[in-house]
Amino acid sequence: MRPSKRAVDELRPVTLERGVSKHAEGSCLVKFGDTHVLCTASLEERVPPWLRGQQRGWVTAEYGMLPRATGDRMRREASAGKQSGRTQEIQRLIGRSLRAVVDLEALGEYQISVDCDVIQADGGTRTAAITGAWVALRDCVEWMRARDMVKKQDVLKDHIAAISCGIYSGTPVLDLDYAEDSTAETDANFVMTGSGGIVEIQGTAEGAPFSEEEFGQLLGLAKTGIGRLVDLQKMSIL
Amino acid sequence: MRPSKRAVDELRPVTLERGVSKHAEGSCLVKFGDTHVLCTASLEERVPPWLRGQQRGWVTAEYGMLPRATGDRMRREASAGKQSGRTQEIQRLIGRSLRAVVDLEALGEYQISVDCDVIQADGGTRTAAITGAWVALRDCVEWMRARDMVKKQDVLKDHIAAISCGIYSGTPVLDLDYAEDSTAETDANFVMTGSGGIVEIQGTAEGAPFSEEEFGQLLGLAKTGIGRLVDLQKMSIL
Amino acid sequence: MRPSKRAVDELRPVTLERGVSKHAEGSCLVKFGDTHVLCTASLEERVPPWLRGQQRGWVTAEYGMLPRATGDRMRREASAGKQSGRTQEIQRLIGRSLRAVVDLEALGEYQISVDCDVIQADGGTRTAAITGAWVALRDCVEWMRARDMVKKQDVLKDHIAAISCGIYSGTPVLDLDYAEDSTAETDANFVMTGSGGIVEIQGTAEGAPFSEEEFGQLLGLAKTGIGRLVDLQKMSIL
Amino acid sequence: MRPSKRAVDELRPVTLERGVSKHAEGSCLVKFGDTHVLCTASLEERVPPWLRGQQRGWVTAEYGMLPRATGDRMRREASAGKQSGRTQEIQRLIGRSLRAVVDLEALGEYQISVDCDVIQADGGTRTAAITGAWVALRDCVEWMRARDMVKKQDVLKDHIAAISCGIYSGTPVLDLDYAEDSTAETDANFVMTGSGGIVEIQGTAEGAPFSEEEFGQLLGLAKTGIGRLVDLQKMSIL
Amino acid sequence: MRPSKRAVDELRPVTLERGVSKHAEGSCLVKFGDTHVLCTASLEERVPPWLRGQQRGWVTAEYGMLPRATGDRMRREASAGKQSGRTQEIQRLIGRSLRAVVDLEALGEYQISVDCDVIQADGGTRTAAITGAWVALRDCVEWMRARDMVKKQDVLKDHIAAISCGIYSGTPVLDLDYAEDSTAETDANFVMTGSGGIVEIQGTAEGAPFSEEEFGQLLGLAKTGIGRLVDLQKMSIL
Amino acid sequence: MRPSKRAVDELRPVTLERGVSKHAEGSCLVKFGDTHVLCTASLEERVPPWLRGQQRGWVTAEYGMLPRATGDRMRREASAGKQSGRTQEIQRLIGRSLRAVVDLEALGEYQISVDCDVIQADGGTRTAAITGAWVALRDCVEWMRARDMVKKQDVLKDHIAAISCGIYSGTPVLDLDYAEDSTAETDANFVMTGSGGIVEIQGTAEGAPFSEEEFGQLLGLAKTGIGRLVDLQKMSIL
Repeated sequence: MRPSKRAVDELRPVTLERGVSKHAEGSCLVKFGDTHVLCTASLEERVPPWLRGQQRGWVTAEYGMLPRATGDRMRREASAGKQSGRTQEIQRLIGRSLRAVVDLEALGEYQISVDCDVIQADGGTRTAAITGAWVALRDCVEWMRARDMVKKQDVLKDHIAAISCGIYSGTPVLDLDYAEDSTAETDANFVMTGSGGIVEIQGTAEGAPFSEEEFGQLLGLAKTGIGRLVDLQKMSIL
Repeated sequence: MRPSKRAVDELRPVTLERGVSKHAEGSCLVKFGDTHVLCTASLEERVPPWLRGQQRGWVTAEYGMLPRATGDRMRREASAGKQSGRTQEIQRLIGRSLRAVVDLEALGEYQISVDCDVIQADGGTRTAAITGAWVALRDCVEWMRARDMVKKQDVLKDHIAAISCGIYSGTPVLDLDYAEDSTAETDANFVMTGSGGIVEIQGTAEGAPFSEEEFGQLLGLAKTGIGRLVDLQKMSIL
Repeated sequence: MRPSKRAVDELRPVTLERGVSKHAEGSCLVKFGDTHVLCTASLEERVPPWLRGQQRGWVTAEYGMLPRATGDRMRREASAGKQSGRTQEIQRLIGRSLRAVVDLEALGEYQISVDCDVIQADGGTRTAAITGAWVALRDCVEWMRARDMVKKQDVLKDHIAAISCGIYSGTPVLDLDYAEDSTAETDANFVMTGSGGIVEIQGTAEGAPFSEEEFGQLLGLAKTGIGRLVDLQKMSIL
Repeated sequence: MRPSKRAVDELRPVTLERGVSKHAEGSCLVKFGDTHVLCTASLEERVPPWLRGQQRGWVTAEYGMLPRATGDRMRREASAGKQSGRTQEIQRLIGRSLRAVVDLEALGEYQISVDCDVIQADGGTRTAAITGAWVALRDCVEWMRARDMVKKQDVLKDHIAAISCGIYSGTPVLDLDYAEDSTAETDANFVMTGSGGIVEIQGTAEGAPFSEEEFGQLLGLAKTGIGRLVDLQKMSIL
Repeated sequence: MRPSKRAVDELRPVTLERGVSKHAEGSCLVKFGDTHVLCTASLEERVPPWLRGQQRGWVTAEYGMLPRATGDRMRREASAGKQSGRTQEIQRLIGRSLRAVVDLEALGEYQISVDCDVIQADGGTRTAAITGAWVALRDCVEWMRARDMVKKQDVLKDHIAAISCGIYSGTPVLDLDYAEDSTAETDANFVMTGSGGIVEIQGTAEGAPFSEEEFGQLLGLAKTGIGRLVDLQKMSIL
Repeated sequence: MRPSKRAVDELRPVTLERGVSKHAEGSCLVKFGDTHVLCTASLEERVPPWLRGQQRGWVTAEYGMLPRATGDRMRREASAGKQSGRTQEIQRLIGRSLRAVVDLEALGEYQISVDCDVIQADGGTRTAAITGAWVALRDCVEWMRARDMVKKQDVLKDHIAAISCGIYSGTPVLDLDYAEDSTAETDANFVMTGSGGIVEIQGTAEGAPFSEEEFGQLLGLAKTGIGRLVDLQKMSIL
C-alpha cells in the first residue's frame, strides 16, 4: 500500500490553471497534488548571441524554488550567490524537453523564456514543471499568433509532458510524492510527446541496482501517466 | 483623477489569506490589488552566531521577486549570482519593521525567518510584504504557543503594517499602484504600529523637492491607510 | 547632556577642503568632527547603456569604507567579494540626492561618478558624504565649464546637503556622532536643497516607535543644520 | 558506416593505466580512444558535516576539463568563477555511480574524493571517467586495507562501468566518439554493475523522439559494452 | 634627464606621519612625492585557524586603491566582486616583507592586520606601502607593550623598507614615479632590512632583457635608497 | 648533501615531449623530475578589446593545478569559485615571460593562449611551465607559418626558459624540488632568454635575509641551468 493510498498506476489530482499572471504572455499554475509550480512564458525579442541573424528562435527555461516550498527551509539561491547543481540540472532538462516539440525556424528570431517556480513542493517538481510549462509556452505562441508574429501553424509540433515512476517497497508505482520518493529504491523520470515518442529518460538506482525488466515496468507506467497528462493539457486549452 | 479611479485616500482591494503553505509554521498570501506577495514564516532552532547563549531570539526577512512578476521579465537573481541593492534594501526594511513589534526575549532562543516572495507586482510590493508578513509571523508564534515553546503572552507587542503615499499630478494620494508610482513626483513609504507609533519613514523626491507641508499631508494619508490595514489584519485572525 | 557636550542643535566642527586629489576633476575632503570622507568626482565620456543617444548625462555614486575606519576592523568588501546591503543602500542614496539638483540634459552626454570613501568613521558618514560630494561635483562641473564642455549656466540647479538627527535620552538632537547614534532611540537622515526643499527623509525607530510630534522636531532641527551646511558649502567655493 | 569505421557494437580501444600519480592513494589514466581522463582517488579523514559521528564514510567526485581538451579552447572554469551546469551534472553522476557499489559503513568514517580530469576529449568523457574512477577507487581501498584501515572484505560490493550508445544515421551504435555524438539523433548513457544491475540510465532525444524499441536496442548494446569494460577492469587489477 | 628632474639616485620627498587614525592601534600616512598611502595596523585576538594553539602570532596585509587614486578612474574592486591579480600579488608581498622582521613567537597568539590603502597614486605604491606599514606595525607593537601584552623586547627584529629602481632612457635611476615607470625599460622592486639584508627582489624587463651588470647597478641604487628610508623611519619614531 | 642527492648545480632529469595534444596548435608535456606540466598553445582569432585594430597580437597564459597534483588534495579552484593569489601571480609571470621573446607586431592580429596545467607537482612548477610553454608556443607559431598566417621569420625573437635556485642548508643549489623548497632559507626564480638576457628575477628570503653575495651565487647557478634548458629546447625541436 502506498502512503498516499493511491493505486500503483494512479496519478495525484492534477490541475492546470491558465492565465494566472497579469504580465506574462503565457502562464500556467500546475498542481500535482501538493506540488504547485507557477510557469510563465516570457517573449523576448533578442535571441542568444550564437543564434543571431539565423532566422531561428530559441526556447529556454529557468527553475527555482521558494525557500519554504519544502518541509525545512532551504537557503535562498539568490542569497547564496549561485544556483545549485540540482537546479541547473533541472532547468537544462526543462529547456531540452520543450525544444523537442518546438519548430525553432517557425518561431522566428524570438526567444521564449519559461520560468518554473515551485511555490510548494511534495515530490515530482520537475515533471509538474515540464507539464505546466508546455501550457504556458502554448499560450505564449497563441499570443504571438494573435499579433501575426508567427506565420506558420506548427510552431508547436506536439505536446510534451513528464512523470516520475519508481520502485516503492518492491512495487513499481506511478507519480511519486515526497513520502514515496524519499524511500523509493529506484527513481525514474520520463518525458514524452503527445504521440508517445520518448524525449528523455532518467533512471537512478537509489539503493540496489534495478533490472531491465523492472525498468520496462516503469516505462509502461510512464506511458499511461503521460497519456493522461496530455489529455489534461488538451482539456485545459479547449 | 487617478489612473485607478480611486479616491485620493482609497486603498486598493486588500486581502490577507492565511494558511496557504503546507509546510510553513505561518503563511499569508497578501494582495494589494494586483500586487500579490506570498509570505511564509519559518521557525529555526538556531539564532545568528552573535546572539548565541543570550536567551534571546531573532526575526529576519528575505525578499524576492519571481522573474516575470513584472511587466518586463527581470533577470533571476539566483542566476545573476547576487541580490540587487534594491532587494537588500527592502529585506532589511521588512526585518527591521517586524522586529519593532517583537519582544525578542519573550521569543526565546529561536529565529523566525520570514520570506516575502512577490508572485505578481503592481507597485507597493514592500508595503504589502510588511503587512502580510505580520500575519505569517503571528501564526508562527501561535504555532509555537500551541506547542508550549513560548511562555509569555506578549511575544508580539503590537501590529505592524505599511503603506505608500505619493504626490501624483500635484495631489497627495494613498497606496500608489505601478501606473501612479512610475509618474509620481514624490514617493513615500510609512511603517506604523497598530497603536499609531511610527517605525519607519522613507520619503524620496522623484522630481522636484517636496515641502514640509506636503510631507505632512502624506503622513496624514498614511495614518488613515495603516489604520485600515490593521483592521484587516485583526479580521483575518479572528 | 550629550556625550559630545554639544547643544542639542549644534553641529560638530565641519570642514570642506577642496582640490585634495591630484587626478580627479573635482574633489573634497569633508570632515564632520572625527568623521572624514574623501569625495572625488570623475568625469567619464560614456553614459549607462540605457541612456545612450539621448543627449542626457548621468550622475552616479559609490561608497566605501576603509577597513579600519571603524573602532573594530571590518572585513574589506573587495576581499569579501561583494558590497554589503548597507553599502549599496548608502550609495544609492548619495546618487539619488545628487541627481535631484543636477539638470541632466544640461550636463550633456557625460557621466560623473562620485566616489565617497570613508577614511575615518564616527557616525553620520552618509550625511557627510552627500555634503562633501556636492562640492566635488560642483568643481567637476566647473572643470567642464572651463573647457567649454557644458554650455548652460545651470547644470547644478541648487545646493544639496544632509544631516542626521535623533532622539537621544528622550531629547531630539542634531548631528549624531557614533556614541550618540549607537544608543539613540530614533535615527533620521534628511537630505535637503539650498532652498529648503526636501529630497529624502529616512527615519527609523531603533527602540520604541516615535510620534508625529517627535518627527516634526527632528525635521525642524534638520532644517537648521542643513542651512548651516549650505552656508559652509558656499564659503568653501568662494 | 560509422565515421570511425567501427562495427556498431565495437568499443574504441580502451586502456586503464594504474598508479600514474605519485601522490594519490589510487589513480588511473583511462583512455577510450582519443578521450583521456586522469582519475585520482584521495583519502581524507574528514567526512561531510551531516555524516559526522555516524561511523559511515562517503565517496564524492569532481569533474573538470583542461581548457584545450576540446577542439576549440573553452574558458577555464576557475577563471570564470564557477562550474557550468554540465560539469556539476557530470560530477554528481560520477559520485552517485561510485556510491552504488560502495558499502559506506564498511568504509568507516573516511571520505574518498575522486577527481576526474579530462586531459583530452573526443566524446564519452563521463563514461570513461566512471570506468576509470572505479579503478582508482579500488586502489585507494586497497591502500587502506594494506594499512589495516578497513576491516571487512567488501567495501567495494561490485564493479561499476559506463558507456554511451546512440542512434547514428538511423542505426543504434555503441560508444560514440565526438564525430558521432555531435550528429547522433539520440544519445544515451548507461551505468551498470559487474553483475549487470542498472544504476543509471540517461537517454536524450537530440532530434526526433525515439521509440521504446529503439531504446531497447541501445540498452542491449550497452550491456555488451559494459561487460567488456568490466573484463578490462578485472584484467587491469590482476 | 629624468622627467622629475631628480638626480639618478635621488628619492622623491618622503614623509611618514604617525597617529593619523583615531581607531587603529598603529597608523602611518606615508608619502613618496605624490604617492600617498594610508597604513593602519589592527590588533586582533584571533590567529588564522592553522596557527591556533601554537603560541605564535601572525602578521598579514591587505592592499587597496581608491577608485580615483589614479589618472583614470578604475573600477572599485568591491563592486567588481573580486581583487585583481595585481592587488593580491602586492598584498602578499607586503605581508611577507613585514613577517621577515617579526618574531612571531615573541608576538604571542595575536594577529596584526596591516591595511595599506592608496589615497593617491604616482608610481611606487607597493614600496611606499611597505615602508609606511613598518611604522604602523611598530606603533601597534608599542601599543601592546604599553599594555603588557608582549613580554620580550624584540618582537620587531629590524626595520624593513622598500624602493623601486629602473632603467630609464638607458640609465639606472632610483624611485620611479609614474611618468618614469610607464616608459622604463626595466622595473625592479627591492625590499631590505635596516641592517642591509635582502628580503625580496623582483626585477622585470618591460622591453629588452637586462644584463647582470645592469641589475647590479639597480641593486646598488636600492641599497642607498633603502638606507635613507630606514633613517627616515628612525627619525619618525623618535 | 641534498635530499635528492644531486650536485649543487645539477638539474633534475628534464624532458620536453611535443605534440601531446590532439587538438592544440602547439603542445608540450614538460617534466622536471616528478614535476609534470602539460602546456598547450591555442590560437584564437580575437585579441583583447584594448588591442583591436592595431595590427598587433597578444600572448597570454593561464595556470592551474589538478587537485591531487600535490601531496595533500587541494580544493579545486573552479569549485572554490576563484583563482588563488598564487595562481594569478604565476600565470601573470608566465605571460610576461613569453611576451618578452615574441614580436607582437609580427604575430599579427591573433591571440595565443598558453595553458599550463600541473598534472603532478614536486616543486618548481612555474619554472617548468615557462620552459615547456615556450615549446608549445613555438609549435603554434610553426603551425601558423605552415598556413601562411605569419609572414616574417622572427615572431619568436629568442628562447625563454626558467629555473629556481635556493639556499639549502647554507649552500646555494640549483632546481629545488619540493623537499628542498620547503626547507630552503631563500628561494629565487630566474627567467632568461637564450642569449642570456634576464627577463625576470624573483628572490624571496623565507627565513633570514640574504646577502648580495649569496644572491650573486644564485644568479650564477641560474645562468648555468637555463643554458642547459635552452639546449634541451633546441634538441626537442630538431
